[in-house]
Amino acid sequence: MSKIITFGEAMVRLSPPDFKRIEQTEALNITVGGAEFNVAVDLARLEESSSWVSLLPDNPLGKLMRNKAREQGAGVEHIQFKADSRAGIYFVEYGASPRPSKVLYDRKNSAISNIKPGEINWEEVFAGAEWFHTTGITPALGEACACETELAIKTAKKLGLFVSYDLNFRGNLWSSAEAQKVTERYAGCIDMCVGNEEDTEKVLGLKSGSTDEDYSKLDQDSYAETAQMMIDKYGFKYVATTLRESVSVQRNNWRGMLFAKGKPYFSTKYELELVDRVGGGDSFSAGLIYSLINNKEPQDAVDFATAYSALKHSIFSDTNWIDKSDVEALLAGGGTRIKR
Amino acid sequence: MSKIITFGEAMVRLSPPDFKRIEQTEALNITVGGAEFNVAVDLARLEESSSWVSLLPDNPLGKLMRNKAREQGAGVEHIQFKADSRAGIYFVEYGASPRPSKVLYDRKNSAISNIKPGEINWEEVFAGAEWFHTTGITPALGEACACETELAIKTAKKLGLFVSYDLNFRGNLWSSAEAQKVTERYAGCIDMCVGNEEDTEKVLGLKSGSTDEDYSKLDQDSYAETAQMMIDKYGFKYVATTLRESVSVQRNNWRGMLFAKGKPYFSTKYELELVDRVGGGDSFSAGLIYSLINNKEPQDAVDFATAYSALKHSIFSDTNWIDKSDVEALLAGGGTRIKR
Amino acid sequence: MSKIITFGEAMVRLSPPDFKRIEQTEALNITVGGAEFNVAVDLARLEESSSWVSLLPDNPLGKLMRNKAREQGAGVEHIQFKADSRAGIYFVEYGASPRPSKVLYDRKNSAISNIKPGEINWEEVFAGAEWFHTTGITPALGEACACETELAIKTAKKLGLFVSYDLNFRGNLWSSAEAQKVTERYAGCIDMCVGNEEDTEKVLGLKSGSTDEDYSKLDQDSYAETAQMMIDKYGFKYVATTLRESVSVQRNNWRGMLFAKGKPYFSTKYELELVDRVGGGDSFSAGLIYSLINNKEPQDAVDFATAYSALKHSIFSDTNWIDKSDVEALLAGGGTRIKR
Amino acid sequence: MSKIITFGEAMVRLSPPDFKRIEQTEALNITVGGAEFNVAVDLARLEESSSWVSLLPDNPLGKLMRNKAREQGAGVEHIQFKADSRAGIYFVEYGASPRPSKVLYDRKNSAISNIKPGEINWEEVFAGAEWFHTTGITPALGEACACETELAIKTAKKLGLFVSYDLNFRGNLWSSAEAQKVTERYAGCIDMCVGNEEDTEKVLGLKSGSTDEDYSKLDQDSYAETAQMMIDKYGFKYVATTLRESVSVQRNNWRGMLFAKGKPYFSTKYELELVDRVGGGDSFSAGLIYSLINNKEPQDAVDFATAYSALKHSIFSDTNWIDKSDVEALLAGGGTRIKR
Amino acid sequence: MSKIITFGEAMVRLSPPDFKRIEQTEALNITVGGAEFNVAVDLARLEESSSWVSLLPDNPLGKLMRNKAREQGAGVEHIQFKADSRAGIYFVEYGASPRPSKVLYDRKNSAISNIKPGEINWEEVFAGAEWFHTTGITPALGEACACETELAIKTAKKLGLFVSYDLNFRGNLWSSAEAQKVTERYAGCIDMCVGNEEDTEKVLGLKSGSTDEDYSKLDQDSYAETAQMMIDKYGFKYVATTLRESVSVQRNNWRGMLFAKGKPYFSTKYELELVDRVGGGDSFSAGLIYSLINNKEPQDAVDFATAYSALKHSIFSDTNWIDKSDVEALLAGGGTRIKR
Amino acid sequence: MSKIITFGEAMVRLSPPDFKRIEQTEALNITVGGAEFNVAVDLARLEESSSWVSLLPDNPLGKLMRNKAREQGAGVEHIQFKADSRAGIYFVEYGASPRPSKVLYDRKNSAISNIKPGEINWEEVFAGAEWFHTTGITPALGEACACETELAIKTAKKLGLFVSYDLNFRGNLWSSAEAQKVTERYAGCIDMCVGNEEDTEKVLGLKSGSTDEDYSKLDQDSYAETAQMMIDKYGFKYVATTLRESVSVQRNNWRGMLFAKGKPYFSTKYELELVDRVGGGDSFSAGLIYSLINNKEPQDAVDFATAYSALKHSIFSDTNWIDKSDVEALLAGGGTRIKR
Repeated sequence: MSKIITFGEAMVRLSPPDFKRIEQTEALNITVGGAEFNVAVDLARLEESSSWVSLLPDNPLGKLMRNKAREQGAGVEHIQFKADSRAGIYFVEYGASPRPSKVLYDRKNSAISNIKPGEINWEEVFAGAEWFHTTGITPALGEACACETELAIKTAKKLGLFVSYDLNFRGNLWSSAEAQKVTERYAGCIDMCVGNEEDTEKVLGLKSGSTDEDYSKLDQDSYAETAQMMIDKYGFKYVATTLRESVSVQRNNWRGMLFAKGKPYFSTKYELELVDRVGGGDSFSAGLIYSLINNKEPQDAVDFATAYSALKHSIFSDTNWIDKSDVEALLAGGGTRIKR
Repeated sequence: MSKIITFGEAMVRLSPPDFKRIEQTEALNITVGGAEFNVAVDLARLEESSSWVSLLPDNPLGKLMRNKAREQGAGVEHIQFKADSRAGIYFVEYGASPRPSKVLYDRKNSAISNIKPGEINWEEVFAGAEWFHTTGITPALGEACACETELAIKTAKKLGLFVSYDLNFRGNLWSSAEAQKVTERYAGCIDMCVGNEEDTEKVLGLKSGSTDEDYSKLDQDSYAETAQMMIDKYGFKYVATTLRESVSVQRNNWRGMLFAKGKPYFSTKYELELVDRVGGGDSFSAGLIYSLINNKEPQDAVDFATAYSALKHSIFSDTNWIDKSDVEALLAGGGTRIKR
Repeated sequence: MSKIITFGEAMVRLSPPDFKRIEQTEALNITVGGAEFNVAVDLARLEESSSWVSLLPDNPLGKLMRNKAREQGAGVEHIQFKADSRAGIYFVEYGASPRPSKVLYDRKNSAISNIKPGEINWEEVFAGAEWFHTTGITPALGEACACETELAIKTAKKLGLFVSYDLNFRGNLWSSAEAQKVTERYAGCIDMCVGNEEDTEKVLGLKSGSTDEDYSKLDQDSYAETAQMMIDKYGFKYVATTLRESVSVQRNNWRGMLFAKGKPYFSTKYELELVDRVGGGDSFSAGLIYSLINNKEPQDAVDFATAYSALKHSIFSDTNWIDKSDVEALLAGGGTRIKR
Repeated sequence: MSKIITFGEAMVRLSPPDFKRIEQTEALNITVGGAEFNVAVDLARLEESSSWVSLLPDNPLGKLMRNKAREQGAGVEHIQFKADSRAGIYFVEYGASPRPSKVLYDRKNSAISNIKPGEINWEEVFAGAEWFHTTGITPALGEACACETELAIKTAKKLGLFVSYDLNFRGNLWSSAEAQKVTERYAGCIDMCVGNEEDTEKVLGLKSGSTDEDYSKLDQDSYAETAQMMIDKYGFKYVATTLRESVSVQRNNWRGMLFAKGKPYFSTKYELELVDRVGGGDSFSAGLIYSLINNKEPQDAVDFATAYSALKHSIFSDTNWIDKSDVEALLAGGGTRIKR
Repeated sequence: MSKIITFGEAMVRLSPPDFKRIEQTEALNITVGGAEFNVAVDLARLEESSSWVSLLPDNPLGKLMRNKAREQGAGVEHIQFKADSRAGIYFVEYGASPRPSKVLYDRKNSAISNIKPGEINWEEVFAGAEWFHTTGITPALGEACACETELAIKTAKKLGLFVSYDLNFRGNLWSSAEAQKVTERYAGCIDMCVGNEEDTEKVLGLKSGSTDEDYSKLDQDSYAETAQMMIDKYGFKYVATTLRESVSVQRNNWRGMLFAKGKPYFSTKYELELVDRVGGGDSFSAGLIYSLINNKEPQDAVDFATAYSALKHSIFSDTNWIDKSDVEALLAGGGTRIKR
Repeated sequence: MSKIITFGEAMVRLSPPDFKRIEQTEALNITVGGAEFNVAVDLARLEESSSWVSLLPDNPLGKLMRNKAREQGAGVEHIQFKADSRAGIYFVEYGASPRPSKVLYDRKNSAISNIKPGEINWEEVFAGAEWFHTTGITPALGEACACETELAIKTAKKLGLFVSYDLNFRGNLWSSAEAQKVTERYAGCIDMCVGNEEDTEKVLGLKSGSTDEDYSKLDQDSYAETAQMMIDKYGFKYVATTLRESVSVQRNNWRGMLFAKGKPYFSTKYELELVDRVGGGDSFSAGLIYSLINNKEPQDAVDFATAYSALKHSIFSDTNWIDKSDVEALLAGGGTRIKR
């Protein structure tokens, strides 16, 4: 019986060391990642009671994914193991300017993509819970997953849970048209919507006038304007986004915004030395959920979530091996000198 | 234009180091393997002109498989890269007594399994070739592959190539009944058939009277008897098999038999310290093909093939990083002392 | 609320790779181990509800130990984190004949060794539990630990739990005289006692007439005789032991005995190729507890426990990354060939 | 029969990981490199038909060098293996500001340095070829190599091949005076000359008025001026150079110039995060050859070659594991964000 | 009989690779470090006759520490091995902005912390020596060490050795009040005092008027002013300090100052790409000692020491695997391009 | 001023991990080895005062070799660093039955092979020494080395040192005829001669009647007979040999013989699990020297030397990271169980 429930796929993540490309590597590091897995694990790491709901193959790769959630304290009691199914896999090649990092997916036919109606008893899963989180990746895994996402969100809403949703548009999984059509089915049930300008346009069809073609000139006003449009249309209580400036492949600037109570709250901007940027957005979501479920004020919430997710970029892993005390030290202006 | 053509799937092979299990490893070694890939590469290593025919995904994993064949000199001119397809993957856990080594396959929906009629022009592929080799794994990948295997074998036969076939029964890919039904379609076109007692019973339905239930008490007479039955029924010119005694997980004994010209030829028996036993049988096939295409006498052929494949077991890889000179040194009684 | 509770220290384990000695290595593998930690984790791996009770330092090493228990499903709800304390550490050098493997301990002043009376509320810990397990290492960590062990055992007994105890004599922690004196305080509360001939003599002062000086000529009769003496003196319900023959540093033979219902039950003997023998005895204890709590008959119990712990020796880790299905395959005569 | 032929030495390259110095490392990564090897391999990677001509020792190191060329598709049919010879070796220590990276050569007496007149039949090698490439390193390996380089260039010219030459002055192999004397023998046969200001002065004795003492203040005008001087003196059709600004050890700026049809064409400037800068210049040469043999216009040629070689700096290896599609994405303004 | 003697603790240093945190790593790199160990080793590396005095546990970890000093040429003849004692250990997590690097100490009860009066015969140790160096870490290890430090310094002074002392305040070992009280006992015997503004205030109770609260706005004048105050109060001959600007976790600026003969000498400022900053200050001390014992002028001394310690930051290790020739190349403006 | 002096070449040793062959490895482990280097280091490890005399290249590889001797306590004060010279290198491929381990040398033109008369002042080197050791590898490095070996031996003899010599015949360095001719020049000055039957025949031209063609049937009598012949001819005081039975590549049996005072003394036979057999013979020599210089009786000497060198085979390295206490434990029948 966890306070926060997330639902979605996790994948085995394989990445060559030392900036090598797949073709030249003789070894692959193995970890586990997936947007909703990451959020559940990050929340457990922040000492919240969270549980990740998923379907996994009944083989060592499936067990590995379950174990890694459990290692950091996420609840795994609602995970189901399926015979004759496979684990989604993804490969990450880490880059250096001017070569961007690159992801290769091999996720088709994973256990969760073959979910059948009724396999998950959402009433049971949500018993005692307060918050439900999922992302736009889950419904993009196929119609079965889209239906299950819709059912989960609507059941959560019905049972009085707070529902957060990261738009997370993935063009290699579905088209903008498909995304809009599916998302419309349950967008009205969402309490907090996380997503950047591109997500917003592709998934919700909303675009502020001040946005240009390739989303490169996003300013604060544009973000606030878009957030207001989203709230007007769907009745979201919160809209949040991260603002990444890609100075180079290995150096990014990072800032967060939370639109709440009618106005935007911006965090300070962090200059990041990237170790691994995958999962940065999920850490932001986790940091927000942690903050809001603990009744932080909007400014405090966005400050915490942004600092927490800024630190994620220094960690090799989809998930964020950072403690609350590390975040507090950063927020207190801890600086970049070695801590003895 | 290669002298020897092989046809079949290769997979990316991922294996934890240091006898670790998948659930406990943080890294995986990556190599490439597959029965027909192995035979083509081993023959190239033995300085024969060989070419591996396959369908691969048009992504870095597909390129990796092509590269690794090329690295050791196998021809790759007939490989086709397919968009929107995936690379088969398999995992190997290395064991130690009493824990056996274990393989986990994730090969469904690989590029080759979706082969379409006419994609390979066998007349072109076989132009100038003398020998064709494939194994019972290829037709087991699905009806499309079974048809293509049949077509390849029959075209090879028609064009006058020598056809060798390793029965290689894989119970996780098809049933014995399916195997028999498919294999009957082209068994009469095979010149050399490689396979052990279990393969022979499961794929050809033949069982010598002296075989017991679990194939553990196989003696020389039984092998010769079965070989004669195979020849009588299908008209094979050669029948070959390897005899593995599993003393422990890390120590095996290894011997080969070639039935030719009406009688069995047995090699000496090697005591193996196993580094990696995957691909041992394929090395035996490659050693036989090398020997016979170079007109070695049956005894010399089985001696070479067995020594060559015995050495394979000391090599980490599906393929055999052994030179002809290493085999010759072993056959000459080189001994186990360090060579300076 | 777990069914089985264990209590004791865990240490960070550091071991050089590739048979290197500490002085020559540039890297150390890091895992976690400790007799009672191992038993709790192994039971969780066998899908039993187990919980490990301990005191850990409130730093990343303490968290690491907690995480690793959690990763495999052991309960960690009774672990307490202590400020200003340290993690015990031990180093293992893996040997090859004639060089034995070697352990170097740096465990003094660990968090648990400074336990204070009342820190653990045993009534709460044992609520709903059926079984309590600890070993002779815990009381050997100092008088504070000896008192806590006594209290835990007596409370468990009072509350009706089944109490199992592995004598586990460690000469570098205390003398035989000290061990006997402390153990006498609670030996009468033990239901199942695990220990070899040396343990029995050093900890309980019992020695069968057929035992010689250096415990090398232990035969079946001697074991049974000693077990009967233990039962006569202390009223144990079960006495169990493992019989290790050290053929060489890397090859051992392994057999188990369970004395129950007035007679000894012996398992078959396994020939082991050692990857890592640390934790082998703990796996035997875990296998016995699993078997008895599931009402297996004595012969089945010792068979399962011995097979399970034999497999442990092939696993790099103090704990046993083996599944029930692996044990069942071994008991069914699975053999040493690769499993595809 | 390859379209492009390169000729020169390759070496086994050994490099400590993790910025370690040779004295402190316990392991060395092993790859293969050499200017002309690199160009042949890079061209094969760009899907051109290329072949690398060299003499290698008949031992596993020689085979390794051959294999690595073959792995990426370069032709190896003209390589000769020599008994009783050795493989050149070089060590690279990777630095970080203010410590520069450092190379240690052990290349004396390599197989190619002992080449004998007539060992290579250039008429045969060049049959069907269109382009010949070598660099100033080959003649610097000794008089035997200087003669062979001269012969190769003159034969190529006679047979109508396009001849490209990278001046590549190496002060540890020969003096400026020696370089000038040798290069004069065949400079008139060169069609495209690649080299920076220092190369030009040391090898050709040409220096523009605007160059200062230590080549640090090279501006665009100076480059163009020097190129024109080279063309006036030797009749080159193309002169090309790369302009590296060493911002720090790990950050460089990179730009290319191609002087063609009477004027200089400059590429855009790339800001590089260096993973491995060795082979960057060779990638530039390969990119130019690829572009010109495919009839790209000068601006397109220098753009492609510079982008391609900029990407090389992000790759651990002398050779460039980059695909044409990666270059196209960069030229299209792909940006530094992760590609999913 | 060495020219330079240092006295203090060394620890086994364990650090996760690849920016991992302790909780997520499966391996730790092992090296050895400690302020006075580092200085002795660095001086040996600079080809000075140095000897490190310490007490070590009589186990493989103690031997390892001795060996690593010896490997680089430091004298180890005064090291004493103690039974039943332990090696101090420290863990380093390397960070990336905004996550600072972090040190976790486990050094209590190390061999040296239990030193007994009379164990070291300082008259013998100092026979023939010219220079004695220790730091504020040694007396902070406990009253026994404080007494021994006092004795060593006073004996050195008495015997005419030059005494250098790095204030090195460690807040986790003692309070500012304790530090001041102890240091007062022997401060008057120190010839050269090394320390930054914070050290000076915490250990000597001196603070220039121009220093603000968190030591972030330290300018040149402030440093000079403070140095003069130190000299006025304690009669130091030299005062030295390093000025680190932490641009980011991985980029620092680095400059040194030596106050001598009544005025401050500042080095140039280096922009550092950090590989490992631990030991940077010790390298500065070593560089100063090397310079002054070789009679360099103040400006040359601070230039050498700063260049030498700047290079240290590019080296993975507490000690500085840099040669004098590397320093000279840097001082001569060697630049950041690869050296062939 | 060391008690024991050794003289000879050391090489950088590069070996692929995990039984890989050179062609398939991506990394090489780097250590240092060489017969006389090994003996000096082993003696230092046994806490004897030893010094290794050699010529090394003045580059990081030369420094590495010096450092590694120093790390374990061998004296390096007589090592000379030569500009423009190279480090000998050798590669080891570790095998598994039936593939033997294999060594590839690249040692030509190493610093020592170009030694010039008078470079080493042997009178100075031997001042205060008692024992001189070298092997038949040193004179085999060329006539310059042969002369220097002769000079060293004769000077040692003249100065009253005890001279030990390991015949160590290397067929890839010189012929039997050359070896005999050179060795005759100084054989009469040798006090202890170490060598097996093959060495004795090839280097001294002596062969007992009971030896067969391939040295496989060597019995105790044959060894004693040969030793007596050597003593009769050259006047050696001691003759020693090791008897290796190569059961398999990874399992050997090992025994030593010392012929002294007119009769042979044989050690017990050890069953070895090989980790690394290179340097086993050198450890035997070191063990003998250690024993004899400490006045052990012949039986004790051969027992110690054999146990010490048996343990070497379990150590990854040319040198023996074993302590005297380990040898004593083995001689006391320590057994193969883990030592806690």
